[in-house]
Amino acid sequence: MATLVPELNPPSRLLLGPGPSMVSPRVLRAMSVPLLGHLDPAFLGIMNDVQQQLREVFRTKNPFTIAISGTGSAGMEAALVNLVEPGDTALVCVNGVFSTRMADIVERCGGKLVKLETPWGQVTDLARIEEALKKNAPVKVVAVVHAETSTGAQQPIEGLGKLCHQHGALLVVDTVTSLGGVPVEVDGWEADAVYSGTQKCLSCPPGLAPLTLSPRALEAVKGRKSKCRSWYLDAGMIADYWAEGKRAYHHTAPISMVYALRESLRIVLEEGLEARFERHRRHSAALMAGVATLGCAPQAQAGHRLASLNCIQVPAGVEEAPIRKAVLLENGIEIGGGLGPLAGKVWRIGLMGESSRQENVLAVLAALEQQLKKAGRPVRLGAAGAAALEAYAG
Amino acid sequence: MATLVPELNPPSRLLLGPGPSMVSPRVLRAMSVPLLGHLDPAFLGIMNDVQQQLREVFRTKNPFTIAISGTGSAGMEAALVNLVEPGDTALVCVNGVFSTRMADIVERCGGKLVKLETPWGQVTDLARIEEALKKNAPVKVVAVVHAETSTGAQQPIEGLGKLCHQHGALLVVDTVTSLGGVPVEVDGWEADAVYSGTQKCLSCPPGLAPLTLSPRALEAVKGRKSKCRSWYLDAGMIADYWAEGKRAYHHTAPISMVYALRESLRIVLEEGLEARFERHRRHSAALMAGVATLGCAPQAQAGHRLASLNCIQVPAGVEEAPIRKAVLLENGIEIGGGLGPLAGKVWRIGLMGESSRQENVLAVLAALEQQLKKAGRPVRLGAAGAAALEAYAG
Repeated sequence: MATLVPELNPPSRLLLGPGPSMVSPRVLRAMSVPLLGHLDPAFLGIMNDVQQQLREVFRTKNPFTIAISGTGSAGMEAALVNLVEPGDTALVCVNGVFSTRMADIVERCGGKLVKLETPWGQVTDLARIEEALKKNAPVKVVAVVHAETSTGAQQPIEGLGKLCHQHGALLVVDTVTSLGGVPVEVDGWEADAVYSGTQKCLSCPPGLAPLTLSPRALEAVKGRKSKCRSWYLDAGMIADYWAEGKRAYHHTAPISMVYALRESLRIVLEEGLEARFERHRRHSAALMAGVATLGCAPQAQAGHRLASLNCIQVPAGVEEAPIRKAVLLENGIEIGGGLGPLAGKVWRIGLMGESSRQENVLAVLAALEQQLKKAGRPVRLGAAGAAALEAYAG
Repeated sequence: MATLVPELNPPSRLLLGPGPSMVSPRVLRAMSVPLLGHLDPAFLGIMNDVQQQLREVFRTKNPFTIAISGTGSAGMEAALVNLVEPGDTALVCVNGVFSTRMADIVERCGGKLVKLETPWGQVTDLARIEEALKKNAPVKVVAVVHAETSTGAQQPIEGLGKLCHQHGALLVVDTVTSLGGVPVEVDGWEADAVYSGTQKCLSCPPGLAPLTLSPRALEAVKGRKSKCRSWYLDAGMIADYWAEGKRAYHHTAPISMVYALRESLRIVLEEGLEARFERHRRHSAALMAGVATLGCAPQAQAGHRLASLNCIQVPAGVEEAPIRKAVLLENGIEIGGGLGPLAGKVWRIGLMGESSRQENVLAVLAALEQQLKKAGRPVRLGAAGAAALEAYAG
């Protein structure tokens, strides 16, 4: 018999990476509440609360607005596996890791994949999408990432839903890194399937994927010619589980995670969405003013930068991994590195939900200064923080 | 704007249904520990701990022994979607809700389904499986449920792995309601894919699905002709995420749930598996002695009854739902009703993990007596508890 593992005692970290973000003590406490059964009438009431809260945060009236029992990627798979049937054409706007993942999933669904590629950090022009819709007609699904966590780019969605519908297509939008931190307008966009994760701007631990489907998307689900390839993510069955008055047993919901999500959404709605978006903008602007003094340029296209996830280029001549490691192990702050073609080239600093605060902006700027100076860069200590404070002063 | 939802304040329940079971305060406390990032070296150490613990509980040396980021049904889907390719023959032993679900998933994977049906509550004879293996050769996968949560039947698995391998098939076993409460012997059985849930005999909240794959199963995964239909559950990619030294980013693990699972497995291994199995047997025997005085016969075949999940027939002439509702709302105890063809006919009383205790046996027997008496049944109050105490006295 192997040795028993010791008591859980993880080090304390300030989470400023691409997620998870910091979690409020209120949410941690909600998770430690003793469990109800997943079919208990009291738990069904809690599910109703979460649906109501998610509709507010997504800004939608969609009855099908739920939390998928998996992390954000399960939300992505749920959206696509329900809407893309074998032989359906799906147009994916590819400009980062998560849109690349969407393309991969489309192929696994048996869909006919059309990739509309744009350099990483750029956004996709609506005129190009329109052109591709015409060229590849009929297109069943158009899929875009609103907030590309791998590049820090924010895709404009305004008008895209209408455009898709004019061409008979459904619009799928990934809002994993925007929901609750950057404006998401499901009904305003006329989007048909929009999913997110809990561990970003909602500041809840990872484990659930908010998902909303428009009536038009549900029609497509009901009209499928073949069964959904996933039993676990079958939207028809999940709809019957979440629908008030039905609650047909499908699978056991992750009860403690639902408690956590409910509490994190209470916090989001207490602050108010507009105040929250403004807070995310303010701290991102201060951070970007600070990192500019360190010679770090933004990776994302001007005018299309996410406030929640700040992707910045590592200064020329700096080896990124040792700096990031020192920031983690010496300063106790997690920031992210680059993925795919951006590996070694960028840092990704998340200021999401609870993490989006002035003291965190100053802490990470100080840590970067210290570690860059140790690595021999000509850094003037305190300059980055000063620039951030100037930005706050406006 | 809708009204804010009130503070989380669920009623207190004793969970003696088919899951979730009661969760130890130690596990609830572990969930409230502030989060690490999912790629933090300290979190990777925690993943190693969980893998080591799961190998002990599954009784296996399989390197691929992990927790899938979803509930037990995600574990089922993960096992099947990775092993069943379009056109592969899969033999499913169907005798309850969960084996019926396996059959459904096989079809969604594009597999050629062979159903070996047995009445609900009975187990499948190995000779019949052998016959079916010969008749339908070549069979790629044989799938059985070790612990049928819908009927309380325990399928004998001894010898089945060898039999499958003699016919070139892989053995998939569902241990959702047995792992940690009833002997599970992954290597002893020569099983190839075995999954479970966390919210049953492990007494952890729902949200993860322990899964172990034999080297033979991994060979089949690597030798697939087509990509796995699920990106989220793709065992090849998940293996690279969990493999020490690789930790290739796949998706964000549900960190707080991993903390909870680690703590619940510490508790399981502190008690010791054999002591735990004996405890489950003892309390189940006492419960069954008690319910016999109420006129409730066991649903499962004699000699094949689960200690963790006691499925008993509702006495003739009793309407089951109002009794179960009163036990929940007046006595604060959750028990389960029947599913599918057993709806209205059985109660399912879980004595799993933390729930398997003498005081809980006495509590549920007392509650059933009270509610049956109120419903006009000729019940002698205290008789069921007395019978249980006699059983404990041996």
